[in-house]
Amino acid sequence: MPRIVEIRQNVLKKNDYLARELRERFREAGVYVVNLVSSPGTGKTSLLRETLLRLGERYRVAALVGDLATENDALRLRESGADVRQITTGTVCHLEAEMIGRALEGWNLAALDFLFIENVGNLVCPASYDLGENQRVVLFSVTEGEDKPLKYPTIVNSADVAVLTKIDLAEAVEFQRDRFYEGLQEVRPGLPVLEVSVRTGEGLPAWLSHLEAGRRALPETASSR
Amino acid sequence: MPRIVEIRQNVLKKNDYLARELRERFREAGVYVVNLVSSPGTGKTSLLRETLLRLGERYRVAALVGDLATENDALRLRESGADVRQITTGTVCHLEAEMIGRALEGWNLAALDFLFIENVGNLVCPASYDLGENQRVVLFSVTEGEDKPLKYPTIVNSADVAVLTKIDLAEAVEFQRDRFYEGLQEVRPGLPVLEVSVRTGEGLPAWLSHLEAGRRALPETASSR
Repeated sequence: MPRIVEIRQNVLKKNDYLARELRERFREAGVYVVNLVSSPGTGKTSLLRETLLRLGERYRVAALVGDLATENDALRLRESGADVRQITTGTVCHLEAEMIGRALEGWNLAALDFLFIENVGNLVCPASYDLGENQRVVLFSVTEGEDKPLKYPTIVNSADVAVLTKIDLAEAVEFQRDRFYEGLQEVRPGLPVLEVSVRTGEGLPAWLSHLEAGRRALPETASSR
Repeated sequence: MPRIVEIRQNVLKKNDYLARELRERFREAGVYVVNLVSSPGTGKTSLLRETLLRLGERYRVAALVGDLATENDALRLRESGADVRQITTGTVCHLEAEMIGRALEGWNLAALDFLFIENVGNLVCPASYDLGENQRVVLFSVTEGEDKPLKYPTIVNSADVAVLTKIDLAEAVEFQRDRFYEGLQEVRPGLPVLEVSVRTGEGLPAWLSHLEAGRRALPETASSR
């Protein structure tokens, strides 16, 4: 088995190298990049669609979206009016920096304020792949139960912020908020959490402010507005 | 990259070889083995707990349960009175035949009628790893949305039956049944689907009958009752 481990490490090392290049490209272009990771069905696409719509009123926004199969998410997201590209991975369970680099070909990044990357629905594998993003957001939904942060610590540890989605359903599924926060606190003390419901709009202003604050904290570059 | 692909194929080949050995052991012992795969939070553990409780009244049942971290699921499942062992995978995103073999050490399989394996919550990677099971069950919940079969075709194609969970919440989340079934039909025409709600008990008798029918179809062995 040591040979397999060694080769896996080489793959990761190559990804880290490519991610560093991406990060440098993003910095030069002055675009703020957000990587959304979660289980399938947590509501990444719904939140992203709403985010593109609302931020799109004041900023230049775009998205890359990863799935094993179908262009469905890109189609849904394009309804927001933003430029969206789909990455289909076939059987690969996560996005890699190389896929991002390829999907960005021909795009003028300097013409963007925000670029969102919606990862493949998977709470395990995307944790290990840096995409050069400024911010990694891990999403959990109240319908998944309270124990997910404890059971998927790797992804929680790689995130910069957690978003709890579908909070309008919290009562219907008898979601125990205390247990969720205790688990998250145990894995990653101090990780900021934002609660949102795309359906009712609750929490969306705070989410958008959070993104804007992140972008404002970027160092100034030639192409910043 | 060809070297990496080759080694990945060797890992899979080794798994297939070990899975064949497991399948032979299970057959000799006369135990019926069910592998449950789904996203995190679809309700594998809830359904399994109820299944162990109800089947446990008439059969000898046990379970292996996989997670990256925590023994929580094994603790929850042991409340049913069944023998349950936890497999913690660390950062590995699926169970492998080798892990199953190790976890079964010292267990008298011939003393069991049903063995359930709850896979790591992941709708991608477990598709590629045969665990020697008689039946692979892929679970989707109404809270995940209708489009998941289309977006995760690999796991759908590797399953013997699909279970749609949390159907008591279908109305609250405005689940569009037709779209779900259309997508499933497109990926895998004719795949049987069972709808269940552990909370209300709806669909559980059909689910249990389905399992019993599977076991009855096993060829007779010396250790069968």
